Amino acid sequence: MHKVEYIENLARLDVNRELRRGVPEVIYAEGKEYDDLLSIARVALDSKNKVIISRVKREYIDSLAKELSSYASNVKVSKRGRIIVAYKDDDANAVKGTVGIITAGTSDIGIAEEVRLVAEAMGCNTITSYDAGVAGIHRLFPILKDMIAKDVDVIVVVAGMEGTLPSVVASLVDVPVIGVPTSIGYGLGADGIGALTSMLQSCTLGLAVVNIDNGVGAGAFAAMIANRVARYKNNR
Amino acid sequence: MHKVEYIENLARLDVNRELRRGVPEVIYAEGKEYDDLLSIARVALDSKNKVIISRVKREYIDSLAKELSSYASNVKVSKRGRIIVAYKDDDANAVKGTVGIITAGTSDIGIAEEVRLVAEAMGCNTITSYDAGVAGIHRLFPILKDMIAKDVDVIVVVAGMEGTLPSVVASLVDVPVIGVPTSIGYGLGADGIGALTSMLQSCTLGLAVVNIDNGVGAGAFAAMIANRVARYKNNR
Amino acid sequence: MHKVEYIENLARLDVNRELRRGVPEVIYAEGKEYDDLLSIARVALDSKNKVIISRVKREYIDSLAKELSSYASNVKVSKRGRIIVAYKDDDANAVKGTVGIITAGTSDIGIAEEVRLVAEAMGCNTITSYDAGVAGIHRLFPILKDMIAKDVDVIVVVAGMEGTLPSVVASLVDVPVIGVPTSIGYGLGADGIGALTSMLQSCTLGLAVVNIDNGVGAGAFAAMIANRVARYKNNR
Amino acid sequence: MHKVEYIENLARLDVNRELRRGVPEVIYAEGKEYDDLLSIARVALDSKNKVIISRVKREYIDSLAKELSSYASNVKVSKRGRIIVAYKDDDANAVKGTVGIITAGTSDIGIAEEVRLVAEAMGCNTITSYDAGVAGIHRLFPILKDMIAKDVDVIVVVAGMEGTLPSVVASLVDVPVIGVPTSIGYGLGADGIGALTSMLQSCTLGLAVVNIDNGVGAGAFAAMIANRVARYKNNR
Amino acid sequence: MHKVEYIENLARLDVNRELRRGVPEVIYAEGKEYDDLLSIARVALDSKNKVIISRVKREYIDSLAKELSSYASNVKVSKRGRIIVAYKDDDANAVKGTVGIITAGTSDIGIAEEVRLVAEAMGCNTITSYDAGVAGIHRLFPILKDMIAKDVDVIVVVAGMEGTLPSVVASLVDVPVIGVPTSIGYGLGADGIGALTSMLQSCTLGLAVVNIDNGVGAGAFAAMIANRVARYKNNR
Amino acid sequence: MHKVEYIENLARLDVNRELRRGVPEVIYAEGKEYDDLLSIARVALDSKNKVIISRVKREYIDSLAKELSSYASNVKVSKRGRIIVAYKDDDANAVKGTVGIITAGTSDIGIAEEVRLVAEAMGCNTITSYDAGVAGIHRLFPILKDMIAKDVDVIVVVAGMEGTLPSVVASLVDVPVIGVPTSIGYGLGADGIGALTSMLQSCTLGLAVVNIDNGVGAGAFAAMIANRVARYKNNR
Amino acid sequence: MHKVEYIENLARLDVNRELRRGVPEVIYAEGKEYDDLLSIARVALDSKNKVIISRVKREYIDSLAKELSSYASNVKVSKRGRIIVAYKDDDANAVKGTVGIITAGTSDIGIAEEVRLVAEAMGCNTITSYDAGVAGIHRLFPILKDMIAKDVDVIVVVAGMEGTLPSVVASLVDVPVIGVPTSIGYGLGADGIGALTSMLQSCTLGLAVVNIDNGVGAGAFAAMIANRVARYKNNR
Amino acid sequence: MHKVEYIENLARLDVNRELRRGVPEVIYAEGKEYDDLLSIARVALDSKNKVIISRVKREYIDSLAKELSSYASNVKVSKRGRIIVAYKDDDANAVKGTVGIITAGTSDIGIAEEVRLVAEAMGCNTITSYDAGVAGIHRLFPILKDMIAKDVDVIVVVAGMEGTLPSVVASLVDVPVIGVPTSIGYGLGADGIGALTSMLQSCTLGLAVVNIDNGVGAGAFAAMIANRVARYKNNR
Repeated sequence: MHKVEYIENLARLDVNRELRRGVPEVIYAEGKEYDDLLSIARVALDSKNKVIISRVKREYIDSLAKELSSYASNVKVSKRGRIIVAYKDDDANAVKGTVGIITAGTSDIGIAEEVRLVAEAMGCNTITSYDAGVAGIHRLFPILKDMIAKDVDVIVVVAGMEGTLPSVVASLVDVPVIGVPTSIGYGLGADGIGALTSMLQSCTLGLAVVNIDNGVGAGAFAAMIANRVARYKNNR
Repeated sequence: MHKVEYIENLARLDVNRELRRGVPEVIYAEGKEYDDLLSIARVALDSKNKVIISRVKREYIDSLAKELSSYASNVKVSKRGRIIVAYKDDDANAVKGTVGIITAGTSDIGIAEEVRLVAEAMGCNTITSYDAGVAGIHRLFPILKDMIAKDVDVIVVVAGMEGTLPSVVASLVDVPVIGVPTSIGYGLGADGIGALTSMLQSCTLGLAVVNIDNGVGAGAFAAMIANRVARYKNNR
Repeated sequence: MHKVEYIENLARLDVNRELRRGVPEVIYAEGKEYDDLLSIARVALDSKNKVIISRVKREYIDSLAKELSSYASNVKVSKRGRIIVAYKDDDANAVKGTVGIITAGTSDIGIAEEVRLVAEAMGCNTITSYDAGVAGIHRLFPILKDMIAKDVDVIVVVAGMEGTLPSVVASLVDVPVIGVPTSIGYGLGADGIGALTSMLQSCTLGLAVVNIDNGVGAGAFAAMIANRVARYKNNR
Repeated sequence: MHKVEYIENLARLDVNRELRRGVPEVIYAEGKEYDDLLSIARVALDSKNKVIISRVKREYIDSLAKELSSYASNVKVSKRGRIIVAYKDDDANAVKGTVGIITAGTSDIGIAEEVRLVAEAMGCNTITSYDAGVAGIHRLFPILKDMIAKDVDVIVVVAGMEGTLPSVVASLVDVPVIGVPTSIGYGLGADGIGALTSMLQSCTLGLAVVNIDNGVGAGAFAAMIANRVARYKNNR
Repeated sequence: MHKVEYIENLARLDVNRELRRGVPEVIYAEGKEYDDLLSIARVALDSKNKVIISRVKREYIDSLAKELSSYASNVKVSKRGRIIVAYKDDDANAVKGTVGIITAGTSDIGIAEEVRLVAEAMGCNTITSYDAGVAGIHRLFPILKDMIAKDVDVIVVVAGMEGTLPSVVASLVDVPVIGVPTSIGYGLGADGIGALTSMLQSCTLGLAVVNIDNGVGAGAFAAMIANRVARYKNNR
Repeated sequence: MHKVEYIENLARLDVNRELRRGVPEVIYAEGKEYDDLLSIARVALDSKNKVIISRVKREYIDSLAKELSSYASNVKVSKRGRIIVAYKDDDANAVKGTVGIITAGTSDIGIAEEVRLVAEAMGCNTITSYDAGVAGIHRLFPILKDMIAKDVDVIVVVAGMEGTLPSVVASLVDVPVIGVPTSIGYGLGADGIGALTSMLQSCTLGLAVVNIDNGVGAGAFAAMIANRVARYKNNR
Repeated sequence: MHKVEYIENLARLDVNRELRRGVPEVIYAEGKEYDDLLSIARVALDSKNKVIISRVKREYIDSLAKELSSYASNVKVSKRGRIIVAYKDDDANAVKGTVGIITAGTSDIGIAEEVRLVAEAMGCNTITSYDAGVAGIHRLFPILKDMIAKDVDVIVVVAGMEGTLPSVVASLVDVPVIGVPTSIGYGLGADGIGALTSMLQSCTLGLAVVNIDNGVGAGAFAAMIANRVARYKNNR
Repeated sequence: MHKVEYIENLARLDVNRELRRGVPEVIYAEGKEYDDLLSIARVALDSKNKVIISRVKREYIDSLAKELSSYASNVKVSKRGRIIVAYKDDDANAVKGTVGIITAGTSDIGIAEEVRLVAEAMGCNTITSYDAGVAGIHRLFPILKDMIAKDVDVIVVVAGMEGTLPSVVASLVDVPVIGVPTSIGYGLGADGIGALTSMLQSCTLGLAVVNIDNGVGAGAFAAMIANRVARYKNNR
């Protein structure tokens, strides 16, 4: 049966979705006041094991994380990623797929942190390599070798500007690659449109994309792939 | 060692990529003359087991397929999809992941056929349901139930116009969903831009996209996921 | 005869339009100073029964509403919607059409409040259901059943991001549906362009749209439909 | 109970939608072959009273209309509108709302004919005035007076280029106005984008729009309004 | 001979252009510091009779105007238009063409003031009618009648949003009309793109446009027309 | 009194506009059949002295011109400009303003011919200089000197690609300049968008524009300026 | 002194530019008739040593080249590049800079041929490597090593789709790289916009671009660099 | 051998690139905190002779320059250009190519300063002429004559708005010209899109461009050309 709760008429949480799809509740904080955020997150934690709050204003992060720690056994925070994950208990039974995360530059790290915390919230292990920049391709090979050696099931590549790194990575590995364009860039193709376009135009097979700066979406998509693989891999 | 062959100075084939990544050689026929196509395909078949020719002009399909059948043990053709796959021998050892393919309307079937033939060329089983139209959501439930029952590892959803079907499907299943916008649509958002935008804006987690009409890319991406799962699932 | 008044050379009010078309005077507050707003609203109230002020700066709302209450018998305010409606007397003779209003997410509520206050200012009853989100279609059915049971004459659906809720609603009801895209969204299709495009591309019959964030326009359009129906329905 | 029929795996018709929403089956002929069209239309006529085929290729119209006349008691055709409506029997019980249709120029007449035939297929009376051009506003007044005198419930205004006529009409009447931008126009704002933008930007209350060239959508939306009004008006 | 002066290496003024083309020096203040502005304006006034400073920051206007009044016999200011004109002596010999200026709404007045002060700086008489709004066409007729009676040589029409007023005016008068789109508008066609597009698409002959918010350009263009006419008209 | 005639329900001609505004009837031939064109033109010639038919299909020009010569005393044709002007009698009383017309390249000549024939149809003298290309500025000076010597009242400059010629001309002359962007150009800014943008961005005062390829609009606007000047100049 | 000749009023050739800047006359054939082309080219050859005709219609190439061979001692043709270069005599004194030319795919070869023939017409040696595709980076290293060994002064890289090859090349060499985006690509970023954007967004220093498909511009720009270097290199 | 250093996991510097390509390390400061900037710059200076920091926040410039002066023998700063270059020792062996730099207006000077400091950091001499504005072409000739007399090897032209100056310069000189569009401009083509488009559409041969505001890229590209020429020129 499907259970619905009302939180001061603002948001109705879908309690069972977490169970059904392995996808935790995500609260998008953009444009929401501090008190609304706290109240929505608390109600969510009543019925769910995990809550993700993304795009939290920098000035809210510390105190929001602190307050949530009264309701959760574990609270993970990335300030760069402006994201908080509150867990009521550990995912002892998590499937533990493995997700690789690469960024092209230092400016892309915030979005990569969204990917990481969401994938981890969905029970995955993550391997990160930030600032692998396409300018020096030679930097890339040892990174990919290491990820392959650790048997990643999927790699998320976060890149702004010309956005070519996902395509280069996809041409070198045999796992699915997810490109996340970031809103870095200027002039023609500013705000990530150049990076998104470049990834969509890529001739390399094995690459799919999410919208600009959508680290949450990429993390969840990657975790769904990795966990599906891991369910069989680990149970062999 | 990496082997490179020259075909009348037109195209250098990367012979070993098929082995390395499980991705067959794809020849994009758009703008290529009949004789060029045949010659490139033949040379490719010399060194590779499978060759995919996409976006073949309608008037070339029959005779190209016929000529290729002299060089291949099996030639699969989709006229609607304007795609030909030539196999030298059967993939007895294929991993056999399972890919579900759904289209929103009849106009999307050509692109869905690209998805199907590419996924099958990479050794996958496919389950298709064409014309599931979002207009009648009730039509969708039995289709998805059937696909889940057959344990699909990934679902590709092909849709033009408002392009909302991938998002709806992703909200109802717990496997990764790949959206393929098609160049169906008119007015604001014509040529698939509306469908692409809609898929990128989707709030539903578990969805990634490829470029407009990129059935080949979606098929290969889906097959990489499905085969990675199947490698462990089937070997249990 | 047509009467025109001059307010310090800033705006000429069309006194008789309210009578002729049932459309109240709307003052668009964006970019107007507090004193200008107050002065324009007061002159308007001299000759008209109702004045709507939309897009009022948050910091102006309280004191503007308070000052207007000296000139009007009733002042309705929505802080989220940043809209004020001042009435000189009750619309005892209002036709009382019925308008349903639905939002996809909590971020769309401000625009929905514009719809509500404008429709009510035109004498309509409104039934609202905010945050009906397309992600869980099952949430939608009871909402629509209730609206149909209350015999709504038209439904306004407010949605940002992928903007698919209006299309889904239109496919399920037999009253006209008006889609209002909101400037929620990011990356490709940011600022509501994605939602607008999606609604325009919809294959579902029975849907028309207004511009992004145009809650005032949608409210007035819906009220014109509902009141025209109600004139005959109620007088039977 | 919901009944679904399969037509050679191409299209599944939703038989009961016509009854439920008063919206006839519309077959969009763009990109469909003659034989497919005929076959889909025939199966549709087996279970439905009316079938609309829009965007029919000019060279198909005559023979398609002729062949359908064997299956239908009445076939209405507009060559300019490239639209065919086949009726199995007369709508003796039609509600008979009244829809006004105006075009700005002669180039907009094709789309206006789509509006007309769809509205008539939904049982409405239509009053048309083609080529009312905004250039001479004086031409417009007698047209609108006549429509108001005939008690139209809604007016559809079809316009390309600068697309201002819907806004002008909406400022002069007290019934809802639906703007249909047409793909007439060149340079900046070509292909109807200028007209669509202009209609969306309109300050006049009482106007909503559909996508460029979407005469079918405008006709159905207008008919839903008119019929809802007429149900009460005529039963008084 | 052409004389060039250097002002601290920032800007070289073209001293003789004013004489040659009747076009005064215009200093575009956007992004310039207060001291730079003052210094450039002073040097300009050394060699020229008039200097126009446009887009002055609101907080600079009062003191800049005051300081310039030490160097000029007359300083005209529009705060709404954020524009200052400093004259060293009166244009006793000005040709005195007549320019009509109309705005659609109150938000367009700032740009109209740019038009007015530039036209007056070029020696023209101006007749203004602000907030003539297209919503009530009946408001427009007496305004135009009055302008024609005063024998305007050209009319500048300033409008944002759907930007249709210039087209309507051009259809009613027999003098050239210059449309100035303003950056008023939202959603599709925001920032004046809708108004610009609408004016460019206009079917009415007798209309040309300048870029969005380019009141200075429109004022100068109108004055060149009016003065050319006036040179012959007044010397008859 | 205003007289309106009906031509087979296709187009209503505004008979008195020619007299009122000096603007002849223009029939836009794009998308109109030969017989429609001929019929509309004939009816127009019944009540008007001049008819302009623009954008005539190349294959229609000769025979249309020939047939019209039975109804008119004079028929002027430009094949490059795809435009026909039919006169019933000579404009003995024409005001005879003088319009200069310059093109940047040979590809712009067709649109320049539209400008010329429309300006001449409105009674102007024209001076043309085609292919003045900005690449060699030295080519431009003698052309402009000649036009100034002949006392042009206005100059129309037609240019595609980077569209800079109008701006250069405006910086060198003291008459108003009208820029006509043409749909020449490729890549970023294709189809004339680059030229239009360039002209709108111009810093040079004394320049206004019409839409891409709108030679008819530019010709009429220029003629209105030139004739207004000439009315006074010639009557001195 | 500057000499100007008139060719039937269509085009004025700038005879001395070739001498002054080393840039030959380029005739852009798009939209020009066969006879016009031949006539312009002949007149050009009267006064100049070399004439380049680009974008020649495929059906004109053979006969145009043949006819020009009567007027020139040498005619070079690329059918793929749709370009003809006619020389009156050999450039015995050419400076002989060296230009490398690389394409990403076979579809880019036509534009690369434009680059090659223009660079050669300006006296350069060219080294070409077509179809170096970014998909296999390993293919690229030997190509670049060879070009560096041959001491190229500049490399032109021609690429469509995601357009990343120029950026990769620039990161690996120490000569200037010119990117030429081609109009290959589909969906978001179609018609070369994706490739152009990608090149403009590149973080790699040492890269500049020309417009989409502008092989002629890239060839001339490269030749100017190479020849300037060669003037000093070869004269040592 | 290639050496890589890690700086607090934020950025990996490519130590040998400076030697290999003559391109110094560039740190893009946008969005980086003061402490990060200082730390990255210091580590870079450990292994490299020169470090460029671009887009430094105005409030950081003074103290960052001061702190870097402890680690470097020479620190060059442009406040307008918001760029700092720190040198450990003098480039006694620099090749000393010569780069000309021209701006159209005063607003373009900041970007021109980026060009200058980067070119100088790569060992070039620079000759600058700021505010050469296209409005007065006569201003341009003496500037170019002077640059040619000083034997510049390449000219960078920085321009916003209509962006035509690079094209004009390229038509007058025989060295390569690099156009840098700046984000100056408003309305259609705002934010530099107009200038970029204009430069890409230019018919003048000898011009290539970089992205909007990319002074760093233009400076490096120009220096690579100039130094390559100078290596041979100076060693003669």
